Amino acid sequence: MTSHGGTVTGRLVRPGGAARAVPTTLEFSAADGTIRSVRPSGGPSDRVVLPGLVNAHAHSGMAVLRGLGDGLPLADWLAVVMSAEDALSEDDLRWSVSLALCEMIRGGTTAFADMFHWTEPLIDTVVEAGLRICAAPAVFGPAVRPYPAAGGRAHPEVLDHVEDLARRYAGEPLVRVMYGPHAIYTCGEPVFGEVARRAAESGLGVHVHLSETAAEVGAAAAEYGRTPIAAAARAGLLGPSTLVAHATKATADDIRLLAEAGATVAHNPRSNLKLGSGIAPVAALREAGVRVAIGTDGPAANDALDLLSELRLAVSLQRGATEDADAWPLDEALASATAHGAAALGFAPTSLAVGEPADLVVLDASSVRAQPMHSAASFVGWAATAADVRDVYVAGRPLLLDGELQTLDEERVLYEARRIADRLGAGR
Amino acid sequence: MTSHGGTVTGRLVRPGGAARAVPTTLEFSAADGTIRSVRPSGGPSDRVVLPGLVNAHAHSGMAVLRGLGDGLPLADWLAVVMSAEDALSEDDLRWSVSLALCEMIRGGTTAFADMFHWTEPLIDTVVEAGLRICAAPAVFGPAVRPYPAAGGRAHPEVLDHVEDLARRYAGEPLVRVMYGPHAIYTCGEPVFGEVARRAAESGLGVHVHLSETAAEVGAAAAEYGRTPIAAAARAGLLGPSTLVAHATKATADDIRLLAEAGATVAHNPRSNLKLGSGIAPVAALREAGVRVAIGTDGPAANDALDLLSELRLAVSLQRGATEDADAWPLDEALASATAHGAAALGFAPTSLAVGEPADLVVLDASSVRAQPMHSAASFVGWAATAADVRDVYVAGRPLLLDGELQTLDEERVLYEARRIADRLGAGR
Repeated sequence: MTSHGGTVTGRLVRPGGAARAVPTTLEFSAADGTIRSVRPSGGPSDRVVLPGLVNAHAHSGMAVLRGLGDGLPLADWLAVVMSAEDALSEDDLRWSVSLALCEMIRGGTTAFADMFHWTEPLIDTVVEAGLRICAAPAVFGPAVRPYPAAGGRAHPEVLDHVEDLARRYAGEPLVRVMYGPHAIYTCGEPVFGEVARRAAESGLGVHVHLSETAAEVGAAAAEYGRTPIAAAARAGLLGPSTLVAHATKATADDIRLLAEAGATVAHNPRSNLKLGSGIAPVAALREAGVRVAIGTDGPAANDALDLLSELRLAVSLQRGATEDADAWPLDEALASATAHGAAALGFAPTSLAVGEPADLVVLDASSVRAQPMHSAASFVGWAATAADVRDVYVAGRPLLLDGELQTLDEERVLYEARRIADRLGAGR
Repeated sequence: MTSHGGTVTGRLVRPGGAARAVPTTLEFSAADGTIRSVRPSGGPSDRVVLPGLVNAHAHSGMAVLRGLGDGLPLADWLAVVMSAEDALSEDDLRWSVSLALCEMIRGGTTAFADMFHWTEPLIDTVVEAGLRICAAPAVFGPAVRPYPAAGGRAHPEVLDHVEDLARRYAGEPLVRVMYGPHAIYTCGEPVFGEVARRAAESGLGVHVHLSETAAEVGAAAAEYGRTPIAAAARAGLLGPSTLVAHATKATADDIRLLAEAGATVAHNPRSNLKLGSGIAPVAALREAGVRVAIGTDGPAANDALDLLSELRLAVSLQRGATEDADAWPLDEALASATAHGAAALGFAPTSLAVGEPADLVVLDASSVRAQPMHSAASFVGWAATAADVRDVYVAGRPLLLDGELQTLDEERVLYEARRIADRLGAGR
C-alpha cells in the first residue's frame, strides 16, 4: 500500500465526541497513513471533516444493472436481472465494480462489505482504487432455489476459494475476506452448518442475508420450523465476526440470539423500504446491545450508493417508526456509519483520533444547502449528500481531491458502463 | 411577469405518461411562457426533463434558523428557535426567504405553498426571484398556547391582511394567497370557524396543519371531543381548496372527511420521521381518493429543501410501511410532486404537455450517480437529488442555467444569511 502524508482542515464531526465548532487541522503521516495530530487551525473554514464512511452491505458488481427492469413485478424483474447478470463477462464485472467504486468514493465511502462473485482480479480492482473491502464470495447451496449460480461453482469450491483469497490477501491492509452464505432460502441449513464449521477452523468471518422479508421468515418456518436467524444460530453461524444483512423481520428472540452472539447487523433502510420488506427494529437491536452498521445494499434495491443519504434515512426512519425523536441519536448513528462498520468488517476504528488510520472525508459546507451552519453535525445528519463530498482519503492516500477522482479513470469507467448497458439493453 | 422563449432537450419523465426513451425537445413560447411543441430531438442527450416540482408545504422564512438548537429536547429547542425568530427583522426575513429560494430553485422547485408571516415585501422577493408561491400568512388564535405571535397581530387583522394580499396580487400569475390558520392547538375551534366563514365569502383557499402528531390528536380529543381533522370539518374548514399539511395521524373517519371535502393532503415524510411524528397513511388516503401532494416542511423538520429527495423518501416509505412494493407507483408519486401540487396551490397543471406553462427542470444524467441509465424514471425516483439539477424554468423564464442562479445574487444571500446566523449565534 502506498502511504502519503498531509493535512485536512475543517469542523470535525465525529461519533462519540462533540463536534468542534472551531476549525481543526488533522495531520496524517506519510510513513504509516495514520492520524498524527488533531489541533485547532488558524482561520475560518467552510469544510467539515468526517471519519471515512463504511458501507456495511453492498453488491457492487451489479452496478451496471442499476434500474434495469424497474417497475416490473418481482418475478419478471428477477428474470431480467438474472439473465443480464449471466451475460456479464469477467471484464464487464471489473467495469461494473469500478463504476460502484467511483460512486462510493464520491459519496465518502472508504470501506465496504460486499457479497458478490469476488475473484482476485475484482479484489485487485478495489485495492488499486484504494478503498478497503471486506469481500464475501457468494455461496449458494445445491439448487435450493433457481438463482444465478456462483459462476456455476458448487459451494465447496466457493468455500475453498474464500480460504485461498484470505491467504492471498493476508498481508494487504485494505482487504478482509469473509464467507458469504447467501441466505437460508438459497443455501439451506446444511450449507449454513458447513460454513460454520469452516469458519470455526479458519477464524474468518461470515456475511449473510437473514430475515430480510416476511416471505423469507414464513418459508423458513415452514421448512425448518424456525426463523432464519434462529436457523443460523442453530447452525453455529452467528458469532462476533458475523455480519447479518437486514434482520428486518428479527423477532425478540432473534434479537436476543444476535446480542448473545455479538453479531453485527448491517441495516439497509432504503432497500428495506424500496422492496417493501419493512422497517428493521433498530431501536430494539440497539437496546439489546447488538452492534448496528449501515449499508446501501445492491443497485436494484437502492440505485444510489450514497451513505450520507442512507445515514439520514436510517435515523429519520427509526424516529418516525418508533414515534420517538430520540430513538437513534445522530451521534450514535454516525458511529454506526463509521467506526461500528469498520470494526464489523475487521478494520481499525475511524473516529478522527490520533493513531487511527487517516480514512477521512471532507465536505464542502459553503453551499446554499449547508448555510448558515449553526451545527456541523446537523448539516451532516440532515442535509449532506454525496454531492457535498470534496476530498476522500484512505490511510492518507487521496482518492478524491476537490471533487476529482484520483485513482480511477472515471470517463473510461462511464464509457464502459454505458457500453455494457447498451449491450444488455439490446435484448430488452 | 417577464416571458421568455426557448427550448430544452432531454429524456422526458412525466407523470401519467411513459418516459420517452428517445431524447425529446420541448419548445416554449416567448409570448406567453407556455409549451408550444414536444418532439423527438436529433441526437443523444444526457439530460432528463421533468415538470417543475411543487413543494406543497414549507415555512421558508425560517431558513436562516436551520439546525439551530439541534439535539436539544423539544421544549428547549422551541425556546431557542422562538427567541431567534423574534429577533429577526423584516430585512432578515427577506434574506431568509431568499436563502430558501436559492435552495428551492437549485432543487428544481418551481412553486411552493408556504405558511409564514407573509407581507408584500416578502412576496415581492419571491416574484422577483421568479418562483410561484401560494402564500398563507400564519393565523394564531388569541393566546391558545404560547407561540410566536404573528408579528404581534391579532387574528382578525391577519385575516384582513390575507384578503388585502389577494386583491393586491390578483393580476400576478406567480402568486396565490390562502388563509393560514396554523393548527387547532394554536387557533382553537372559533378561529377555525371564522376562517371558514371568510373563505366561503372570499373564495380563497386554506392552508392548515392538521393531525400532525399523536399529542395533537390527544389534546383535541380532550378539549373538543374530536380529532383535529374532524374539528376542521365541523368548522367548515375542509373543501376542495384546502391544503392539509401532514394528516400523519388521520383515522379512517378523518380520511373519509378529507375525501368527501375534496381536500389535498400535503405529505411531509421527512418532517414526520425526523420529529418522531410517525408515518402518514398515504396508501389509505390515495385509496380513498384524497389528492396527495408532497412538501418539505420547514427548516427545523427538514434541513434540506430538496423535493427530489423528498419524493424518493415518500415512495420508499409507503412501500416499506405497507410492505407492498407497489404501494405508491413512482409515476403517481411524481404526479403528487408536480401536477397535484400545482393544482392544490391554484396553479395550472405541469406535465410537459403542449399548452401548459413551461415550468421545467433539467437534470444532468451524465454523472456516475446516473449511469448507466436503463430507465430515466428510475434515475429520477431512486437516485436524483438537488445536486443533479442543472436548469430550471418557470413560465419559460430561466431561474437556473447550467447550475447558475439567474434571478438571485447567491453570494450576497449566503453572506447575509451567515451574518444573521452569526448574530443569532452570539446569544447562544
